[in-house]
Amino acid sequence: MNKDITIYDIAKNLGVSPTTVSRALNDHPAVNPKTKKRIFDAADQMGYQSNVFASNLRSKRTNNIGIIVPRLNSSFQSSVLAGMEKVANEAGYNLIISQSLESYEKEKANARSMFNSRVDGLLVSLAGDTDKTKHFQPFMDKGTPILFFDRVASQSGHTGVVIDNSQAGYNATQHLIQQGCKNIIHVLGNLKINVYGERLKGYKYALMDHDIPFTQENILHSDLNEEAGEDIAHKILSMDPLPDGLFVSNDACAASCIRSLKQAGIKIPEDIAVVGFNNDMISRLIEPNLTTTHYPGYEMGEVAMKNLINHLTDNTEGVLHNTNTITLRSELIIRASSLKKKLEP
Amino acid sequence: MNKDITIYDIAKNLGVSPTTVSRALNDHPAVNPKTKKRIFDAADQMGYQSNVFASNLRSKRTNNIGIIVPRLNSSFQSSVLAGMEKVANEAGYNLIISQSLESYEKEKANARSMFNSRVDGLLVSLAGDTDKTKHFQPFMDKGTPILFFDRVASQSGHTGVVIDNSQAGYNATQHLIQQGCKNIIHVLGNLKINVYGERLKGYKYALMDHDIPFTQENILHSDLNEEAGEDIAHKILSMDPLPDGLFVSNDACAASCIRSLKQAGIKIPEDIAVVGFNNDMISRLIEPNLTTTHYPGYEMGEVAMKNLINHLTDNTEGVLHNTNTITLRSELIIRASSLKKKLEP
Repeated sequence: MNKDITIYDIAKNLGVSPTTVSRALNDHPAVNPKTKKRIFDAADQMGYQSNVFASNLRSKRTNNIGIIVPRLNSSFQSSVLAGMEKVANEAGYNLIISQSLESYEKEKANARSMFNSRVDGLLVSLAGDTDKTKHFQPFMDKGTPILFFDRVASQSGHTGVVIDNSQAGYNATQHLIQQGCKNIIHVLGNLKINVYGERLKGYKYALMDHDIPFTQENILHSDLNEEAGEDIAHKILSMDPLPDGLFVSNDACAASCIRSLKQAGIKIPEDIAVVGFNNDMISRLIEPNLTTTHYPGYEMGEVAMKNLINHLTDNTEGVLHNTNTITLRSELIIRASSLKKKLEP
Repeated sequence: MNKDITIYDIAKNLGVSPTTVSRALNDHPAVNPKTKKRIFDAADQMGYQSNVFASNLRSKRTNNIGIIVPRLNSSFQSSVLAGMEKVANEAGYNLIISQSLESYEKEKANARSMFNSRVDGLLVSLAGDTDKTKHFQPFMDKGTPILFFDRVASQSGHTGVVIDNSQAGYNATQHLIQQGCKNIIHVLGNLKINVYGERLKGYKYALMDHDIPFTQENILHSDLNEEAGEDIAHKILSMDPLPDGLFVSNDACAASCIRSLKQAGIKIPEDIAVVGFNNDMISRLIEPNLTTTHYPGYEMGEVAMKNLINHLTDNTEGVLHNTNTITLRSELIIRASSLKKKLEP
């Protein structure tokens, strides 16, 4: 392995003093622009690395932002990450990314590793079985800002970027009721995760507002993936009477469920009207096209990262500390899978 | 912001000497296990950060691995990243991730930022308009290992993890020919990207082997996303005669194309047999189900990361330097979208 290139090597190479090289690389006004350019070009060519570590030790900043997501291979999370990366990159920050694989223990280990890497800030979407946030206490004690997104901590004192999941659940359910559905199944994920709890609340409120009794049997818990969609379809097919509406908390699972129901001879939406969640590409490509809630992942990533970086840059510590929730717009997109009645012209 | 917790604070708190604390935290055998545990617990509780920077300065290792992908919000790339993260995390490495957004200039800036962050190694899938690898020279000069995956550099001297794209293109095309297709359209992405060039080669070889003349008009260039699929469908519908086979280099684009063709009254596969690429979830959910090439993204991520970490751990510099290409298995998965003839029992 080669030795690191130092300012002394550059100085020797160009026949200027080390002081001039150091000043030029720090953009000091006393060095004339032509010399600066020569020195920059030489530094580039020779493979000089600015001594980020030493400068980090002085500034106590690493320009690294940590991100912990439940899963990297999720259509929603990868949109969020793309939005975060764009904002961070433009502001000169690197992203250190890890996944908890829905495990509290792994999330704890990831948080510890991020803490030891001295990230300047942390963005977290919680694992499925995380029900406490003690593992983030060291960041808080140290004044390192944390922002939660999508799956946020229910404890007060944290800032979260979310959509109004309760309202979204309400809108989806009310739409099915307006299409004439009276026996609506709701498929959701782990109730420890705020988003599913909130959507369930919205489902219940909508039933209540339309005088439809709530029954626990109509709530199906699921991993919300492709395989789970098949299981859900089998459960539904064994129900007597068959439900007439289905609100699934994720498009992939809804699409897979529709496929299995159709294979069993069920007509969508005539027999069962179906609504998904997320507005993934698959919602526009399956048949019939899937009614769903547009969930702005990319924008959520942008907003979360911008808020964190503003906090770091302006040092306006009060802003994040006093902000409890940032809520983004979401929207029910009505398509053929739920339209029992024709839309009025 | 609170002051950093030092070993002196821990020592004072527990009434032991700073030397004992330092030894305990470094797992020195001279400290008894009970005391070690007490010190570890106190370090945890008090929010002690091991001084990674200082230890990095000594070891010249950061335990950070840099990854540059064209886009984070891609189904394939997010599977790759999930595989990489799993392996890296288990081996105690952090991932620093950035996206080039298909731009050479942005890839260059990302590489420079990774270099200044002193990553221990780099994994790269090249941007669409990258046609040189000079921006990675500083890593090579410094002995920092680089591995390319999926979209690899054509210059020799680099190691790449790939599938046999030429063979995969051959198999897809030959399958269409065996189904009776004689006029096959191939839709591909930017030809600067090795994977598309290789698949085109396979397409041409298959035609040649079956005495079907190649015509440039049957090659359609595309962004290979959902919108592009609609454009491709319109182009195909304006062709006279209509083609009878379609080999698209990506499932999302193929699925969107099938939707538009069906809306125009074309029967799939009777009128046009369609083959995609990647084996994304969408290939199993659209109708008819899409014939495609299984492209093992997660496994590619695992293999690339394992090779890089083995190189870092064993210091067997020769292994990577002498390996040109690591080729993973891929496989044509035949489904209804291409079956003009019934499969023989």
